[in-house]
Amino acid sequence: MTVPPHSLPNWLARGMADLFPDGNPDDVDQALAARLAAAELEGRPLRVKLGIDPTGSDIHLGHSILFRKLRAFQDAGHTAVLIIGDFTARIGDPTGKSATRVQLTTEQVEANATTYLRQLGQGQPKEKALLDFETPGRLEVRRNSEWLEGLDLPQVIGLLGTATVGQMLAKDDFAKRYGGGTPIALHEFLYPLLQGYDSVAVDADVELGGTDQKFNVAMGRDLQRQFSQRTQFGLLLPILVGLDGVQKMSKSLGNTVGLEEDPLSMYSKLEKVGDAAINDYVMLLTDLANEALPANPREKQKAMALAVTASRYGMHVAQKAQADAATLVAGSGAAAADVPEASLSAVNFPAKAFYLLSAVGICASSSEARRQIKGGAARLEGEKIMDPNQEFGSVSELEGKVLQLGKKTFRRLVP
Amino acid sequence: MTVPPHSLPNWLARGMADLFPDGNPDDVDQALAARLAAAELEGRPLRVKLGIDPTGSDIHLGHSILFRKLRAFQDAGHTAVLIIGDFTARIGDPTGKSATRVQLTTEQVEANATTYLRQLGQGQPKEKALLDFETPGRLEVRRNSEWLEGLDLPQVIGLLGTATVGQMLAKDDFAKRYGGGTPIALHEFLYPLLQGYDSVAVDADVELGGTDQKFNVAMGRDLQRQFSQRTQFGLLLPILVGLDGVQKMSKSLGNTVGLEEDPLSMYSKLEKVGDAAINDYVMLLTDLANEALPANPREKQKAMALAVTASRYGMHVAQKAQADAATLVAGSGAAAADVPEASLSAVNFPAKAFYLLSAVGICASSSEARRQIKGGAARLEGEKIMDPNQEFGSVSELEGKVLQLGKKTFRRLVP
Repeated sequence: MTVPPHSLPNWLARGMADLFPDGNPDDVDQALAARLAAAELEGRPLRVKLGIDPTGSDIHLGHSILFRKLRAFQDAGHTAVLIIGDFTARIGDPTGKSATRVQLTTEQVEANATTYLRQLGQGQPKEKALLDFETPGRLEVRRNSEWLEGLDLPQVIGLLGTATVGQMLAKDDFAKRYGGGTPIALHEFLYPLLQGYDSVAVDADVELGGTDQKFNVAMGRDLQRQFSQRTQFGLLLPILVGLDGVQKMSKSLGNTVGLEEDPLSMYSKLEKVGDAAINDYVMLLTDLANEALPANPREKQKAMALAVTASRYGMHVAQKAQADAATLVAGSGAAAADVPEASLSAVNFPAKAFYLLSAVGICASSSEARRQIKGGAARLEGEKIMDPNQEFGSVSELEGKVLQLGKKTFRRLVP
Repeated sequence: MTVPPHSLPNWLARGMADLFPDGNPDDVDQALAARLAAAELEGRPLRVKLGIDPTGSDIHLGHSILFRKLRAFQDAGHTAVLIIGDFTARIGDPTGKSATRVQLTTEQVEANATTYLRQLGQGQPKEKALLDFETPGRLEVRRNSEWLEGLDLPQVIGLLGTATVGQMLAKDDFAKRYGGGTPIALHEFLYPLLQGYDSVAVDADVELGGTDQKFNVAMGRDLQRQFSQRTQFGLLLPILVGLDGVQKMSKSLGNTVGLEEDPLSMYSKLEKVGDAAINDYVMLLTDLANEALPANPREKQKAMALAVTASRYGMHVAQKAQADAATLVAGSGAAAADVPEASLSAVNFPAKAFYLLSAVGICASSSEARRQIKGGAARLEGEKIMDPNQEFGSVSELEGKVLQLGKKTFRRLVP
C-alpha cells in the first residue's frame, strides 16, 4: 500500500504525541486526513472538543499547549467546542477523600469559568487572544450540566453498562490504587463515562487531551459507537515539563510560567529552560522551525523565550522584556559592573523576603518591603517575588544574584 | 455477662440461618429482642422488608419460606413491607448478556406482579392466604420505581460513593467472575446499592432474605447508616433444597413444588422427599415440632407432606390428597392388584407423553391425549404430566408405575 508520507497538515501534526484509534499509524493519519477533506468538501467544519475542569483558575503554559492546538483548528476553519465541566466540579468527590475533587458551589464554578475564559481571551480581538472568540462559528463554549443534569437513573445505568470492571481496573491510576490496596469509591468509575458522554453530547469529530487522558478520550469513542455516532479521533499532546526540566509543569510544584505573568517574568523564566527541555518548549509553545533556531544553546534559549513571550504579548513587548532582562545581567557578565552591590553580611538566615529587602537596604522598613512585594515591584533575577514570606536558607542561595525594586533600582547581592 | 438462653421468640428464631450485624450472636439476638420490646412499648410495629423480583411468576415452596417468616411477623403484629422490584425489572441488563436479568415492559412487570400477589393470597381471607392481606396495617406493597424513578445523577453518584470497588469484588459471585476473567459490567455494581436504598426508602427495621442475599441486605444497613437512619437487622433463612435432595429448589432444575399445584400433586411429590432433606422441610415449611413427628422415615415423610399440603389447602383437602395418593399404590404394595395393567410392549422409545397415552390405550388418539394432558387430566404416579411432549427414554423408566387419566382411570404399566 502506498501511503503519502505527510498526509496531515503541519499545523495539525506538530507536537502530536498520539493519534488514535490504535492501528497502523499511517492508516489513522489517512483516516483523519480523509475526514478533514470530507469536511472541506461538505463545507462542514469539524467539531473539536476540549474539556476543562473549572476547579482552578490560573492557566499556565503547560495548559496552553492544548489551547494552542485548538486555536490551530479554529484558524483552519473548524469549530472549537470548549466544554466546561461545571457539573462534575459541583459534584466533586462525595466521599470528601479526594483532594483533587473538591466540591465547589455553583458560584465558585462560575467565577472560575469566567476567570478561565478571560485568560483564554474572551472579549479580546483574536490577535491578542489564545482562542478565537471573535470569528463566528469558530467557538462553542458549553457547560456539561446542560446534558448531565437531566440524566435519569435508566440512562446512568445505560452508561455504566457500556464499560466493564476489568476495563476500569486496567486504567493506570485505578490499577495502581487497586493493586496498592487504596480504596476506589464506585462513583470514580462513573467519571470517565460522564466525560466520554460529553463527546456524544457535542458530537465531537476530534478530542484533544494530554497523553494522560488517553483512557477518557477512548471512552468518548466507545460511547459514540454505542450511541451510533460517527466516532471521534483522539489527538494527544505531550505533557509539558516544568522549569525544573524534570517534573510536569504544575502549580503545586512551583515550576510554572503563568499565562498572565508580566512579560519580563515570563521571558526571564523561559530563557533559563535547560537543554533537555528546550526542544519541547519550541515545538509545543511556538511556531518556530527547529532549523531556524540558533545552534548556540544560550542563543537558542533566548530565541525560544522571545518567541513564547511574543506569542502572548506581541513582538514589540517581548523585545522590551528581552532588553530589560539583559540589563539584569544574571550571574556574571560584562554589564555586571553597572549594577551596585549590596552585602548580605548583615542578614540573618533563614531570611524571609520582606526582611531581606529591608536588611540589604533596598527598602526603608519591613512593612515598606511587604507593601512593595504585594504590589508586585520586587524581583530576584527578573522573576517577580510573589510571597513576602518566601524564605531563603543561606548566603549561597543568593550571592551573585540581582535584586530589583520597581523599574530602576537594582542591587547585586554579595556575601 | 448473663444472656437469656432464648431471647428471641420461637416464631422468629425458627429456621433462622443467620442474624446480623455480625458480632457475638447472643448480643445480636438481644439487640433484636430489645427492638421488638421497644416496638411493643411504643405501640410501633416493626417494618419488615422483603424484596421480590417480578421477573418470573410461579411461586414454589422454596420461595414460600421467606413469605412464611414474613407472615409470622404479621401475625405477631408487625408490618410486612413487600417491595416489588418493578424498576430494576424494567431496566434489566442493558448489555443483554445476562439471562437472569431480562428486560421487561411495564405491562409484563405488572402482569407478573399481579400473578405474584394473587399467589400470595391477595383478595383472600387470611386463613387461606400465605400473607395477611386483610388486617389493616399488616402489609404494605410498594414498588421501588416509587423512589428510584426520581433519582437524579447527583443522587446516584452519592449512592455509588458509599461503596468501594474492593467491597464489591469481595462479594462472592463478583469475586468468582473477576477471578475467572468473566466481564462484569459496571452497572452490576449499582444493583446491590439500589436494593440497599430500598431499605432507606421504606425505613426497614428487619430485612428478610435467603443466605445468598447477605451482601445485599448488609448494603441496606450501610446505606441506612449513611442516611442517618436506625439500621435494619438482617434475618437470613436457608435456601430450600429441591425434590432431588441435592440442588436448591429452582424451576430451571425441575425439582420444585409449585404453590399452585393441586393437592394430590403437592402431596405426592412431598411424600417422596428423602431423609437428608426432610428435617429442613419440616423446619422451614411447617410449624410441626420435630418431637411430634413419627420416628419411622416413611411415616415422617407422610406427616410432613400432609402438614405442608394442609398449610396450603387446609387439613380436610390435604387428608383427601393423602388418601388419593394411597390408592395410587406407587411401586409395589397390597392394593396394587386393584389396578389394571397396560403393556408397554407396543411402545416405541423414546416416547413422548401424548404418544404414550394413546399407545397404551388409555386415550383413543394422540390428539385426544394432547387435549387431556393440556387439560391437566393425566398423571404419572400421582404427579400431573404438564407437557404433552415430555419424553420417556425406555421401558425401565416407566415399568411398575401408575398412569392415571381423570379421576377414575388407572393403569399400571408393565413391560
